[in-house]
Amino acid sequence: MTPPPARRVPVPPGGDVPGGTGGGPAGTLERQGAIGTQRTNGPRSSEGRAPGESEGHEATTLLRRARAAVDPELRAAVGELPAALGRVARYHFGWSHADGSPATGNAGKAIRPALVLASAAAVGGARARAAAVRAAVAVELVHNFTLLHDDVMDRDTTRRHRPTAWTVFGDADAILVGDALLALALRLLAADPHPASAAAVARLADCVVELCAGQQTDTAMERRRPDEVTLAETLAMAEAKTGALLGCACALGGLYAGAEEDDVAALDAFGREAGLAFQLIDDVIGLWGDPDRTGKPAGADLAARKKSLPVVAALTSGTPAAAELAERYAMPYEEGAEDLERTALAVERAGGRDWAQTQAADRMARAMQELSRAVPEPEAAGGLLALAEFVTRRTA
Amino acid sequence: MTPPPARRVPVPPGGDVPGGTGGGPAGTLERQGAIGTQRTNGPRSSEGRAPGESEGHEATTLLRRARAAVDPELRAAVGELPAALGRVARYHFGWSHADGSPATGNAGKAIRPALVLASAAAVGGARARAAAVRAAVAVELVHNFTLLHDDVMDRDTTRRHRPTAWTVFGDADAILVGDALLALALRLLAADPHPASAAAVARLADCVVELCAGQQTDTAMERRRPDEVTLAETLAMAEAKTGALLGCACALGGLYAGAEEDDVAALDAFGREAGLAFQLIDDVIGLWGDPDRTGKPAGADLAARKKSLPVVAALTSGTPAAAELAERYAMPYEEGAEDLERTALAVERAGGRDWAQTQAADRMARAMQELSRAVPEPEAAGGLLALAEFVTRRTA
Repeated sequence: MTPPPARRVPVPPGGDVPGGTGGGPAGTLERQGAIGTQRTNGPRSSEGRAPGESEGHEATTLLRRARAAVDPELRAAVGELPAALGRVARYHFGWSHADGSPATGNAGKAIRPALVLASAAAVGGARARAAAVRAAVAVELVHNFTLLHDDVMDRDTTRRHRPTAWTVFGDADAILVGDALLALALRLLAADPHPASAAAVARLADCVVELCAGQQTDTAMERRRPDEVTLAETLAMAEAKTGALLGCACALGGLYAGAEEDDVAALDAFGREAGLAFQLIDDVIGLWGDPDRTGKPAGADLAARKKSLPVVAALTSGTPAAAELAERYAMPYEEGAEDLERTALAVERAGGRDWAQTQAADRMARAMQELSRAVPEPEAAGGLLALAEFVTRRTA
Repeated sequence: MTPPPARRVPVPPGGDVPGGTGGGPAGTLERQGAIGTQRTNGPRSSEGRAPGESEGHEATTLLRRARAAVDPELRAAVGELPAALGRVARYHFGWSHADGSPATGNAGKAIRPALVLASAAAVGGARARAAAVRAAVAVELVHNFTLLHDDVMDRDTTRRHRPTAWTVFGDADAILVGDALLALALRLLAADPHPASAAAVARLADCVVELCAGQQTDTAMERRRPDEVTLAETLAMAEAKTGALLGCACALGGLYAGAEEDDVAALDAFGREAGLAFQLIDDVIGLWGDPDRTGKPAGADLAARKKSLPVVAALTSGTPAAAELAERYAMPYEEGAEDLERTALAVERAGGRDWAQTQAADRMARAMQELSRAVPEPEAAGGLLALAEFVTRRTA
């Protein structure tokens, strides 16, 4: 048996070693909220509230408002597509079934659009928020372009509780609709008469290149032997693949609100750090979450022997459980729940779960620092803070 | 035996019936230049030259100048990509071998950049041409994005005499580098301080959507039975898949030269019609061209039972040879040259080759009309005319 690693030992930047000794069982962390303690580190959105629930409520309100703000323009943009492309896109967004009939689906949590709008509001108030809707739509389009393409490359078969687009319409349609959504996204920004339009296109296009590089590193890492992959490069991959777009969302909100270059950069860094925390928690949920809530099969990443962040942390921990995990990862998945349960247990015993939660807390602390630089007034920063805490405390 | 169909019978717009009777053997057409007779229909770039060679020389000069003008900025744009993406891109462009070592390759004929620059020059002279280089680079990037993605979807293994990127680096890398080139293209235009920048992004993004729709129709048509495909929809597909980008190239040149909206539209129509002529000749070359010159295996389209324009024209001709061709297309390709030769002969005997060359001439005539609307002065239109004639008279 391996002693459970600590949950609050700071991890050096780029460090390959998960936390050492001590600390409680990981389950208590989740009951406290996934990353527990960062609530005192940053600016607060409002005073005197009960912890947890009210901020969760604020975040869900922001997400709902973002969805309501972007959906009309998102549907209008997708509605401009030629019929056969539009049909695949509407299926992907959950607006219609495979046969084209309307569906009351789940288009996702609107985290990225909400970050654009909250970032604009933090810098420039309600007027800036209203002016940034197109940027929020563009970011949502780019996000969905990556989902469509990544699902093809990764051969993922389930997304948002439904079969992925490529499994229904074939690879070509999924690739082409992804291409079209990317073009729509940049077109929408370019055609916006807002003075930040051209800078926003450049920034979002740069982000797309970074997302592609992150996905490329990810697919290349999946082909390598588990012992050839370091934690530092896995973190860098996750920053490019996930952090970049959350950072860009916040940066675009700032740009649209007329923020100075330094503040735009700090908003970008805030989003990146929060994005990495988000990815870490996403990986934890992927390994130990409830498939009824996640919309993805339980243990699918383990069955595919994916080198997610907790897995690589476990593999590089130097513990006896790491050796057992490496042995399991060296062999293909054996059908049946037992293999998955034992593999997940090995990740946990090697400290992968606790490391991920500690690392997420660390990233959130850095995010708070960046946020307080860009938006010093706690009142103004409240929405961004609530969203960042929400996405790293969720369980699905 | 079927009588060879006529080569100069005009085809009604969207008509499904290839030309009827009479006319000479197709081979003489090619010796005269692929579509032979349009030299007297449009404005002339200069007077008193020997026909054929001098205009071909003008076109090759324009293509060489376009390559020289766009290559530095194209290489700089690709050079901004992260290393692993850049490596795949440089291989695709023929600038390096698969191992990353430099190659003196063939990056393509630069037809689309040359159209952008010639269009700008036609409207606004040398100064407009110089200002339009970024637009030319953006169009070339979009063209290569489509090549990378289409080769993945179509499982094409050879391009420009070399193995396609996906066969060397895998599907994921080819998809991702295509995505990145698309993002770079729109970024380049958006970041251009030129006043036409935003309109150009919108126009190029619209074109990308149309290219995707064309490719989607193409892949869907390939899955259908040969007798379910009409010539009208095959022509519409070719216009979206090929004509759209040549039209957009000309439109961007006009936009960058400050042309009025009507003239931009006429330049777009010129490029579309010339693009369709180009595609028709490309299909003819694909069926009867010399693989040493085309860089693609002989008869690859026939072996894959592709429903190219001459094939669909032949299939819908109502001739005995059409029935023979339909029978051949109903069965998978049998390894060996005999199947390909007989299939190509059936296409020819059913009038597919002559129809394609007649249709190309018809499209070129329409292109000339549009050109004379947008650029009434023959001197100014000369470059565009030379390029359009060049691409429809080439043999590889």
